[in-house]
Amino acid sequence: MAETLTFPPEEASKLSPYLPPQHNTSVSSSTAPTKPWVTLTYAVSLDSSLSLAPGVQTVLSGPQSKAMTHYLRSKHDAILVGVGTAVADDPGLNCRIAGAEDSQPRPTVLDPKARWEVREESKVIRLAREGKGKGPWVLVRKGAEVDEGRRRVLESVGGGYLVCGNGAEKGFGWEAVLEVLGTRGMRSVMVEGGGKVINSLLGRDKIGLVNSVIVTIAPTWLGKGGVVVSPDREEGKEQSAVGRLRDVKWCPLGDDVVLCGFPKTS
Amino acid sequence: MAETLTFPPEEASKLSPYLPPQHNTSVSSSTAPTKPWVTLTYAVSLDSSLSLAPGVQTVLSGPQSKAMTHYLRSKHDAILVGVGTAVADDPGLNCRIAGAEDSQPRPTVLDPKARWEVREESKVIRLAREGKGKGPWVLVRKGAEVDEGRRRVLESVGGGYLVCGNGAEKGFGWEAVLEVLGTRGMRSVMVEGGGKVINSLLGRDKIGLVNSVIVTIAPTWLGKGGVVVSPDREEGKEQSAVGRLRDVKWCPLGDDVVLCGFPKTS
Repeated sequence: MAETLTFPPEEASKLSPYLPPQHNTSVSSSTAPTKPWVTLTYAVSLDSSLSLAPGVQTVLSGPQSKAMTHYLRSKHDAILVGVGTAVADDPGLNCRIAGAEDSQPRPTVLDPKARWEVREESKVIRLAREGKGKGPWVLVRKGAEVDEGRRRVLESVGGGYLVCGNGAEKGFGWEAVLEVLGTRGMRSVMVEGGGKVINSLLGRDKIGLVNSVIVTIAPTWLGKGGVVVSPDREEGKEQSAVGRLRDVKWCPLGDDVVLCGFPKTS
Repeated sequence: MAETLTFPPEEASKLSPYLPPQHNTSVSSSTAPTKPWVTLTYAVSLDSSLSLAPGVQTVLSGPQSKAMTHYLRSKHDAILVGVGTAVADDPGLNCRIAGAEDSQPRPTVLDPKARWEVREESKVIRLAREGKGKGPWVLVRKGAEVDEGRRRVLESVGGGYLVCGNGAEKGFGWEAVLEVLGTRGMRSVMVEGGGKVINSLLGRDKIGLVNSVIVTIAPTWLGKGGVVVSPDREEGKEQSAVGRLRDVKWCPLGDDVVLCGFPKTS
C-alpha cells in the first residue's frame, strides 16, 4: 500500500493544459484571496458507476490510472471528498508520486454535520503523523456539534475543523466551500468524490465553478444498482443535456481512457 | 439526410480486428448454418445514456461517429434493433457509406408481438423501394397476430415476418433469434439498440453470444432520467462487475471516443 508511484512524463504532458497554473510557493501574494481553480476528477465504469454500492470499494481502473491520480494530487493545493467517502473508504488522501512527496495536498472533507469519526487510526491521520501527508481540514456547518476528541486528533497533525457558511442551509453551498479554501490560501482544489459531491458539481448551476474535468473510464459494466455519476436535470430543462465538455482530449492509459476537458458554459 | 458518408481508411483499419470475417459472397457454402458473428454497438453520453428519454431522439456523437456507424453496417449481413427503436425513431437502417452502397445489410426488427406499424411511408420501406436498402425482416413470436396489410408492405420490398422461437416464452431468447438469422444465411449481425436490447445482450448469461463490442462515448452528461445502458445484475452476484472487455482499443474520433473490445468470458 505504501509504495511510491511513477507517472511517465509523456503521459503527464498530455494532462498539463487541464491542470491549475503552478505557482512558486515561496513568493507571497498580497492580493485578496480568489476562488481556487477547481479540477473535478473521478473514475467510472462504462455504465458511469463509481462503485458497486455505497461503501463498497470497487477497483475499476488499472495501476496507471492510480499513478495518474497521485500525480494530479501533486499539482493541487487541496483535495476534497465528501464525508460519505471519508467514512466508507478511510482514504489516505495523500500523494505518493515519486519525487513529489513534498508536494502534499491538503485533505479536505465536506462534513456539514461533523459525523466523520476521525481517529488516531484513520489512515489520513496516520499518514500525516508519519510526515507522508498533511493534516485534514474538515469543513462543518456553523452550529454543528463537534466532538472535542476528534478535534484534538485533527489538530495534533496540523488539521482541524473549519466552519463553513452561515448555518442557514442544510449542507453548504459550493461558493462558501471555495471561499473558505481560498481564504486559507488554497489556489487549487481537486474534487475526487464521492457520487453526491460529483453530481452536485456537475449540476447546471454549479458547473461554472469547475475549471477542468478529468474522467477515467474503465472497460467494464458494473450493472444496475451502483453509485452512479449522473447529474440531476433542472426542472423545466429535461429536454436538453445537463452539461458538455469542450476542447476535449481522450488519452488511452492501460486498459482505461482518460478524458480531459473544460466545462462548456453556454 | 440522404448524403453519402465517408469514413477515412486510417480510422477504418483500427476497427478491423473487431469486425466479422469478410466472406466472398459469390461462393456458396454447403455447411450447416452457424451462429452469426454478433457485434454489439451503441453510442452513449458520459452517464451511459442513449437518449434523454424513451422515444426522444438525442444527437450525442459527432459526424465522424455517424460515418463510422454506416461503415460498420457495410461490414455486416444484418443489423438489428428492438421494436421500441423502430417505433420511436423510424430508422433508415441502411448503409450510406461511399462505395459500399451495394453492401446493404438486412434490417432486422425484434418485435415479438408484431406491434410495429410498418407502413409504405416508413423510412426503411421507402429506402428499400428506392434501392437504397433491403426490405426488413420482422421477427415475431409464434402465435403473434400479424396484420396482413403490414405483411404486404414488408413483402413488397423483399422483407417479411419471420416466426422466431416456440411461442413458449413471452419474448424470445437470443439463441432463437440468432438461429433464425443463421438459417437465413446471415453470417454477421450488428446489434444497434435500443436500451432494452443492449442491456439484455450485456447480461452475464448472454454476453457469451457477443463476439465484439464497439461503444461510442460523447463528452456530455444527459443527466438522470435518460435511457441508460447498464445491464441487470444477476441475483446473488451483486458484489462483482457484470462484464468486462479484453484486448481493448480506445480510438478518439472527433470529440468522441470509440471503444472496441471483446467480451471477457470467465
